[in-house]
Amino acid sequence: MFAVEVRDHIMIAHSFRGDLFGPAQKLHGATFVIDVAFFREALTQDGVVVDIGRAHDALKATLSPLNYQNLDALPQFSGQNTTTEFLCKHVFDAMAAAAREGRLGPGGEGVSKIRVSIEESHVARAWYEAAL
Amino acid sequence: MFAVEVRDHIMIAHSFRGDLFGPAQKLHGATFVIDVAFFREALTQDGVVVDIGRAHDALKATLSPLNYQNLDALPQFSGQNTTTEFLCKHVFDAMAAAAREGRLGPGGEGVSKIRVSIEESHVARAWYEAAL
Amino acid sequence: MFAVEVRDHIMIAHSFRGDLFGPAQKLHGATFVIDVAFFREALTQDGVVVDIGRAHDALKATLSPLNYQNLDALPQFSGQNTTTEFLCKHVFDAMAAAAREGRLGPGGEGVSKIRVSIEESHVARAWYEAAL
Amino acid sequence: MFAVEVRDHIMIAHSFRGDLFGPAQKLHGATFVIDVAFFREALTQDGVVVDIGRAHDALKATLSPLNYQNLDALPQFSGQNTTTEFLCKHVFDAMAAAAREGRLGPGGEGVSKIRVSIEESHVARAWYEAAL
Amino acid sequence: MFAVEVRDHIMIAHSFRGDLFGPAQKLHGATFVIDVAFFREALTQDGVVVDIGRAHDALKATLSPLNYQNLDALPQFSGQNTTTEFLCKHVFDAMAAAAREGRLGPGGEGVSKIRVSIEESHVARAWYEAAL
Amino acid sequence: MFAVEVRDHIMIAHSFRGDLFGPAQKLHGATFVIDVAFFREALTQDGVVVDIGRAHDALKATLSPLNYQNLDALPQFSGQNTTTEFLCKHVFDAMAAAAREGRLGPGGEGVSKIRVSIEESHVARAWYEAAL
Repeated sequence: MFAVEVRDHIMIAHSFRGDLFGPAQKLHGATFVIDVAFFREALTQDGVVVDIGRAHDALKATLSPLNYQNLDALPQFSGQNTTTEFLCKHVFDAMAAAAREGRLGPGGEGVSKIRVSIEESHVARAWYEAAL
Repeated sequence: MFAVEVRDHIMIAHSFRGDLFGPAQKLHGATFVIDVAFFREALTQDGVVVDIGRAHDALKATLSPLNYQNLDALPQFSGQNTTTEFLCKHVFDAMAAAAREGRLGPGGEGVSKIRVSIEESHVARAWYEAAL
Repeated sequence: MFAVEVRDHIMIAHSFRGDLFGPAQKLHGATFVIDVAFFREALTQDGVVVDIGRAHDALKATLSPLNYQNLDALPQFSGQNTTTEFLCKHVFDAMAAAAREGRLGPGGEGVSKIRVSIEESHVARAWYEAAL
Repeated sequence: MFAVEVRDHIMIAHSFRGDLFGPAQKLHGATFVIDVAFFREALTQDGVVVDIGRAHDALKATLSPLNYQNLDALPQFSGQNTTTEFLCKHVFDAMAAAAREGRLGPGGEGVSKIRVSIEESHVARAWYEAAL
Repeated sequence: MFAVEVRDHIMIAHSFRGDLFGPAQKLHGATFVIDVAFFREALTQDGVVVDIGRAHDALKATLSPLNYQNLDALPQFSGQNTTTEFLCKHVFDAMAAAAREGRLGPGGEGVSKIRVSIEESHVARAWYEAAL
Repeated sequence: MFAVEVRDHIMIAHSFRGDLFGPAQKLHGATFVIDVAFFREALTQDGVVVDIGRAHDALKATLSPLNYQNLDALPQFSGQNTTTEFLCKHVFDAMAAAAREGRLGPGGEGVSKIRVSIEESHVARAWYEAAL
């Protein structure tokens, strides 16, 4: 199994509902450094999984509506705790759509798995992975 | 599959028995930077795998008896080479018990896999992972 | 010249006033990973600059009122853009006070310079340094 | 499942054929930081997956013919785009041979999987993994 | 003294002349991860050293003519060993010009020092710094 | 001012005397990741500060007598707390001697400053720097 992984980041505000979250129930924020890995059983004729440039562009397009936002105020996240885990899945869904819709260029059609990792600090991160 | 991962570290002395280890048969030591990842098929109602705060606390409680110790002198490791690989399994067992005993809080009961990675330097690390 | 440096982090929300900031004028947030370095011409009798444990504690005490906060709502930052650069100076002032007031333990009295670095993402950071 | 991972690097020139690669069709180069992970179900009697020292040596021997080379001029890569993904597989094959031929020392015979990761910059990497 | 630092990277081919360089006399290449720090005695009215967005743009404009190039073939480097140290100075000169010519926006006029660091691998880097 | 910096590491055991050190008074250990930076006002005719290969070799020669040792048992450290700060100075002295004695090759004679940084964990490090 082959994989390529690209990195970008966003800087957002949000708050959480639930006693579990303690002080994080208050409005606070995070820099999320996001890695997206695309898996493919074999390389394309060009010798790649997908084009790294297009993968970077697709990730940036996915993150752009979230960057410099208060996630609590975005309709798509209404009533939702935008935890690091939850956001991994949100980015996963968008990147899976990008693969299916050909936005990753040649190779995207054969992506069999995607993993989205988000580092929230130097001591904590989360990820989500699933087959396409 | 979702995962969250937390980080802590210990500073220990130890030595190894066996020709394989060459100069590491002498009493030496290491800073071990330890990442523990908890895997869960679905998020809890709060939208998490497990609470990151409790995960950090459980890891610190596991590491505390080892920190600033000569591992050669600890009864629980008697006759054992405390290699990085071996310590991954040791921390795994303790974190698996923490999950089973409810010490990770809500979500801990559904943890299906744990992975413990230990970085022993900028050029070497080890890990152990298994289903619960 | 000797130095020791300790690391901690905070997760905050804030917004900026001024056209210069473009989209960062909106409420957003950041994980700030903060390194504080203490400089001293010579080591103490114990062979240290300052005690690393006490330095970590003093940094945590300084960061605690900021962690999980919306900095826009804190009275001490009223009318102020809480840029990464500005926060470096804020933490510097608190750590300089900690040194002067003996909260760093033996060695703190001889600290001649402090540098505070804040990483806001994997591609940007800021710092402030000055003599005491 | 246990694993140990070792790191080394090479500095090479190469170019790619295919419109997909845009400006990377020109002669350029890369520092590749390479991590090789060896997986084993159980530890050896010594308590290791494989000896880290021997693993480092085997990786260096594999990388040595590539280091400080223009990969376009090497006969073993003739007509081949030496993408990061492709090189992961190249290193994998060599490390799998090292395991089979006993060059990793005791434990090498039981290595059940190898993963080769190559970081090409702070924002992009690739990997290949397969069972032996 | 305040500072802000931004990061970008290039992937280039080159070779060195001189026995000193051993195998690096052959055509090879590197990923250079480049950090540029801007120093200023005081913050601007906006509370910054310089705008991080503009600093990133100015760095990208400086690096663009070098990215995906064989530096041996560029007229501006004719007869020159393009060592990591040399390239630090090259980038410094361009960033100093950007500051002087107002391309960093407000604050750029008061930049008193610039430092350019280039990481060529996980075990080696170089830098150049000077007052403006 | 130009600089080049090289990295290596050691794994050692030691203990500290003095109430200040709390649990670190017990025999424990550390992985020390060591960066040595060489500063020079101008580049040599070859376009370097010093040869990075020779710098790596000189650092390895300096660290070799310490690696895999219990520092408490080494005569050169008798009666001394081998703190991270202290070890920075120890490595500095050895690297300064290497520069003076020509072991860094061409360029070494003009090194005007050396800085030795030691990372003891992901959250703490120390350094020593001085003019030659």
